[in-house]
Amino acid sequence: MAGNSYGTLFRITTFGESHGDALGGIIDGCPPGITIDLEAIQFEMSRRKPGQSAIVTQRKEPDDVQFLSGIFEGKTTGTPIGFIIPNTNQKSDDYSHIKDNYRPSHADYVYEKKYGVRDYRGGGRSSARETASRVVAGAVAKQMLPEIKINAYVSSVGPIFLDKSYQELDFSKTENNPVRCPDEEAAVIMEEYIRDIRKQGDTVGGTVTCVIQNVPIGLGEPVFDKLHAELGKAMLSINAVKGFEFGSGFDGAKMKGSEHNDLYNIDGTTKTNLSGGIQGGISNGMDIYFRVAFKPVATIMQKQELLDNKGNITEMTGKGRHDPCVVPRAVPIVEAMAAIVLADFYLINKTY
Amino acid sequence: MAGNSYGTLFRITTFGESHGDALGGIIDGCPPGITIDLEAIQFEMSRRKPGQSAIVTQRKEPDDVQFLSGIFEGKTTGTPIGFIIPNTNQKSDDYSHIKDNYRPSHADYVYEKKYGVRDYRGGGRSSARETASRVVAGAVAKQMLPEIKINAYVSSVGPIFLDKSYQELDFSKTENNPVRCPDEEAAVIMEEYIRDIRKQGDTVGGTVTCVIQNVPIGLGEPVFDKLHAELGKAMLSINAVKGFEFGSGFDGAKMKGSEHNDLYNIDGTTKTNLSGGIQGGISNGMDIYFRVAFKPVATIMQKQELLDNKGNITEMTGKGRHDPCVVPRAVPIVEAMAAIVLADFYLINKTY
Amino acid sequence: MAGNSYGTLFRITTFGESHGDALGGIIDGCPPGITIDLEAIQFEMSRRKPGQSAIVTQRKEPDDVQFLSGIFEGKTTGTPIGFIIPNTNQKSDDYSHIKDNYRPSHADYVYEKKYGVRDYRGGGRSSARETASRVVAGAVAKQMLPEIKINAYVSSVGPIFLDKSYQELDFSKTENNPVRCPDEEAAVIMEEYIRDIRKQGDTVGGTVTCVIQNVPIGLGEPVFDKLHAELGKAMLSINAVKGFEFGSGFDGAKMKGSEHNDLYNIDGTTKTNLSGGIQGGISNGMDIYFRVAFKPVATIMQKQELLDNKGNITEMTGKGRHDPCVVPRAVPIVEAMAAIVLADFYLINKTY
Amino acid sequence: MAGNSYGTLFRITTFGESHGDALGGIIDGCPPGITIDLEAIQFEMSRRKPGQSAIVTQRKEPDDVQFLSGIFEGKTTGTPIGFIIPNTNQKSDDYSHIKDNYRPSHADYVYEKKYGVRDYRGGGRSSARETASRVVAGAVAKQMLPEIKINAYVSSVGPIFLDKSYQELDFSKTENNPVRCPDEEAAVIMEEYIRDIRKQGDTVGGTVTCVIQNVPIGLGEPVFDKLHAELGKAMLSINAVKGFEFGSGFDGAKMKGSEHNDLYNIDGTTKTNLSGGIQGGISNGMDIYFRVAFKPVATIMQKQELLDNKGNITEMTGKGRHDPCVVPRAVPIVEAMAAIVLADFYLINKTY
Repeated sequence: MAGNSYGTLFRITTFGESHGDALGGIIDGCPPGITIDLEAIQFEMSRRKPGQSAIVTQRKEPDDVQFLSGIFEGKTTGTPIGFIIPNTNQKSDDYSHIKDNYRPSHADYVYEKKYGVRDYRGGGRSSARETASRVVAGAVAKQMLPEIKINAYVSSVGPIFLDKSYQELDFSKTENNPVRCPDEEAAVIMEEYIRDIRKQGDTVGGTVTCVIQNVPIGLGEPVFDKLHAELGKAMLSINAVKGFEFGSGFDGAKMKGSEHNDLYNIDGTTKTNLSGGIQGGISNGMDIYFRVAFKPVATIMQKQELLDNKGNITEMTGKGRHDPCVVPRAVPIVEAMAAIVLADFYLINKTY
Repeated sequence: MAGNSYGTLFRITTFGESHGDALGGIIDGCPPGITIDLEAIQFEMSRRKPGQSAIVTQRKEPDDVQFLSGIFEGKTTGTPIGFIIPNTNQKSDDYSHIKDNYRPSHADYVYEKKYGVRDYRGGGRSSARETASRVVAGAVAKQMLPEIKINAYVSSVGPIFLDKSYQELDFSKTENNPVRCPDEEAAVIMEEYIRDIRKQGDTVGGTVTCVIQNVPIGLGEPVFDKLHAELGKAMLSINAVKGFEFGSGFDGAKMKGSEHNDLYNIDGTTKTNLSGGIQGGISNGMDIYFRVAFKPVATIMQKQELLDNKGNITEMTGKGRHDPCVVPRAVPIVEAMAAIVLADFYLINKTY
Repeated sequence: MAGNSYGTLFRITTFGESHGDALGGIIDGCPPGITIDLEAIQFEMSRRKPGQSAIVTQRKEPDDVQFLSGIFEGKTTGTPIGFIIPNTNQKSDDYSHIKDNYRPSHADYVYEKKYGVRDYRGGGRSSARETASRVVAGAVAKQMLPEIKINAYVSSVGPIFLDKSYQELDFSKTENNPVRCPDEEAAVIMEEYIRDIRKQGDTVGGTVTCVIQNVPIGLGEPVFDKLHAELGKAMLSINAVKGFEFGSGFDGAKMKGSEHNDLYNIDGTTKTNLSGGIQGGISNGMDIYFRVAFKPVATIMQKQELLDNKGNITEMTGKGRHDPCVVPRAVPIVEAMAAIVLADFYLINKTY
Repeated sequence: MAGNSYGTLFRITTFGESHGDALGGIIDGCPPGITIDLEAIQFEMSRRKPGQSAIVTQRKEPDDVQFLSGIFEGKTTGTPIGFIIPNTNQKSDDYSHIKDNYRPSHADYVYEKKYGVRDYRGGGRSSARETASRVVAGAVAKQMLPEIKINAYVSSVGPIFLDKSYQELDFSKTENNPVRCPDEEAAVIMEEYIRDIRKQGDTVGGTVTCVIQNVPIGLGEPVFDKLHAELGKAMLSINAVKGFEFGSGFDGAKMKGSEHNDLYNIDGTTKTNLSGGIQGGISNGMDIYFRVAFKPVATIMQKQELLDNKGNITEMTGKGRHDPCVVPRAVPIVEAMAAIVLADFYLINKTY
């Protein structure tokens, strides 16, 4: 109940800190007979892993996933899929600078207050390294739902926004640049900006947009477990996320009903899609799209105040290899969490 | 599993359509010995009920809650609290205009596709009437946590925004006007705007801001069940919600780490609060604040196209008594869902 | 989390004490389109209700169930089915004899220690009256699974055992006598015995056997949620139950593997069925059968010691109208809980 | 949802087949600050492991547990405890004899019908090897509740019964003999019997009795989640279990209320304890005791019929190294599951 599981029928439970021997997880509820492409899973891992480009953290972690159960002769058997991702890059660091200190806008302080104890060698469970396990589960979920297409991409970096709707984009280009923005021009500007920010020893936030296509009608439950409510929770559970909106989102709150209503075509599709593919919490077959806001990474390479556990304010300059901007590596995590949510609702929908 | 429950330890399960004899629910997990003020509960109901002012729907529903169990001699006994809210205003309407038709941006179409059947006499479970049960549960949750202060208010109506931070507002004024905006000047403009919209037979969206004060440090779980992720889900599960942001929200995504980090005071409080009272998914004792976007109500009093179940596009002018703007009545619902989330995490936190 | 829900996908949540206005519950997860026969539900209620014959408690409670939602035009809609059962027989009793006293082998003492408070007007949630809600849910579950046949009957009363296997019995005779034993001769002896016990002011235990036929292959999950583990929990959750065994049961523990193994026929059925229709936690298509042990009712009409809340031992002779033997009225409850378990696993199995 | 998790707040999720690289699990919800004695955990593993004595299977598996997270500087941190148990004894066997065959009273047939696929190299999830992960979790649960004493022992082997009540036994002697019966004389006879059975190429069932002492008053929930209902489910989820009874058990069903009621002492303890330490589903502070029936192991070393997947009856003599009697190795598993149940209710009880 410490909240390390997600989903009801397709259910992922994760474990692991950044500085133990391994992290990993268990995927329960995956139906039998799903063909598993291990290379495709490892590809998703490589999209999330540190050190993949010049604009992300330069830590080197291969993030190789080892499956221990649940797959036999290339297919799922219906039994739980256990996996581990060894931690290969645990340097015997000197942690004295964080052991007794609470870094601003990190979870150090609340962890110590809540648990009375803290594995000070890293961020513990609040480390973004935990999301590696989510990417594994998401990759399995994607293979369970091959007809559904999930494409996330970076839609803003700091003040730089991609001013195109998703319909104008070619998702096949997302992986062509380290920012993961499918618009080449915008990507160049964003990358430039991130390089600048890094030189300043600073960090910057951004947004990720996710588009889900080819979703069957009927996924989602009408009251508390609305499809967009669960997508929202899934996204907000990713490190550094500050906001979620789908369809017309916050802009929709400015509109009139006569502008906002999506009129029907005779085949049940709609002429507009301000609803974002979801009506009353249930997918209506139109594209689902949403936007996720990420704050700037808290660890900066500038001198900053911090609080020690004796109640003194001290100063520290961030050390280590951190991301100047989190959104390029967040793209596969957003897709993974979306896939997990859809896989769960897909199974629930089979019970009607 | 059709998703009519919310919460793990403090758990609300609801039932009821807008056109049955009653709706209601069961609150399970409320600790024993909590003094229950029935008038305070009924007051919350009156904030949500139809017909309370000139700018909301003119349906008349008293929304009287009847408790059937779990309270004895004025206190909770620890057993489940069952309650019903009779439906007193079910007119024997002619439903032929909706029986065979799918209204734009309503859930009619997806319900029929998902369930193969639909109680066409109203919105069924997608009716906002369902939220009456949430308000009951939220009112109990508030009484369970008397030290925590939850104040929501309308922060925008259509294009009209309240340009003050919550610190500049006096929450005791929220109930002084039908819009539930604690700033009197803004409230007048918003009310005017809603009256205009109604005259046009149109509707308009808006936003609700919620501020939670005096929260103990340590509520929330670090991975999937982050406090803000659960708050986000709770808000997104309310009818017509399109977005959620907390703390710096979407604006935070434009900022640099050097601007965004909340530096500590020596007592563990922070000088700024862009984090919105939550670090790594766990409350840090600072004010929690978030913003919720509501789309305009889909039922408008203008002529509109709709789809019938034979695949024809027809036309209809909305009938009935509907809200021109949903946010004034959404304020107590936002507070109720926030209270339910906090009550649940409060109990979970007792297990450490 | 106070444990008032049962099931994962087909899920019943109940509320209500014996002395409130009503008890009731919510059935969530029932698929849409199930035709509901209200008379059949009320018939199950009448099998459980007090006052139905000379050998059960003479309290008069009509136990009429009122459905408030989830059923429309005679069919389930897929939305939660809310229902209440009004308490019509709450006499304004003098409760002083139990208010300050702990009756032996009742839950009075543990309730007061656990909750610090107790609704002393009756057994609260430990009253067998709570099972009325289970019978409603079970009756709905039976209608959801019309092909599955669930037949329970009284197989022993005190020292009197029905010495026939279930294959020798005609279940259509179970309702022919007040004991609910399908063997007429045994029923007469059992009834006689219960009458004697009642004259002595005493009570007696007994066992109920339940046979489930026509179960599809594949219900149940292989590890923690084995079909028989869930059936066992469901039965042990019924008031006064002390034991559960299925298939060969405790006798099977005396046997050798060469005697116990069920050899196959070529169609996958087995020549013997010591397994009781379940292999590795999963139904194999053979008859499921199990036996449930009920202790004697604790309230006896003889003088007995009890403990008061000041630490004194006092004496009391039981008052009120209680069952001399619980098993005749337990038969429909056993069937109801079995139906709920099967309905849940049936839905879970649809997700593979 | 394939049921590989147990518990609500103290929650174990397991994975792994007998023939993968490893099995393992995740313990979620263990409070922080619990001192973990790794040797004590390994000792429990050694009680369950194969090859420990002449009367159990002669397979050699060291069953070394490796913890990957959640423990830091010798204490739990409150984060999930991930662990693996490598499979070191996977011989590259010839599985053709079971690949296409369904062994009697094994789960082969139902697995293939349910999942459409089966890892035929062993019992898959129905292998008793899965219980190794339960023993790990149970050992952690025991360390979380050091004041509670859980002692299980073998109380019968086939027709040989230990004719002493648990009060007459010295639990410190349970580990003195390979049968795990604390009565030396009975142990000798049981051991002899098992050796005989093995020589015959046969197997035999038995019962395990478990006694839990020093339980605080108040564990368990009054309706569906009664303490004994959950204990029953936990035990019935162990491989080969056919029955569960607590307190007076099936014998209680023969008794009268005047004999069965446990009268109080002035301190709230009871003079007798036919209730088995549980009233209305809640612990009353008296000793909890229950009995678990295990069927004989299905794999015998005699010629037996089996069904192949083409619908033919063939013959096979069991191969491999199997237990002639499962109960000696079941003792630590029974204790482990009891500890897990108690740990969960202990945490739940903290929320009142």
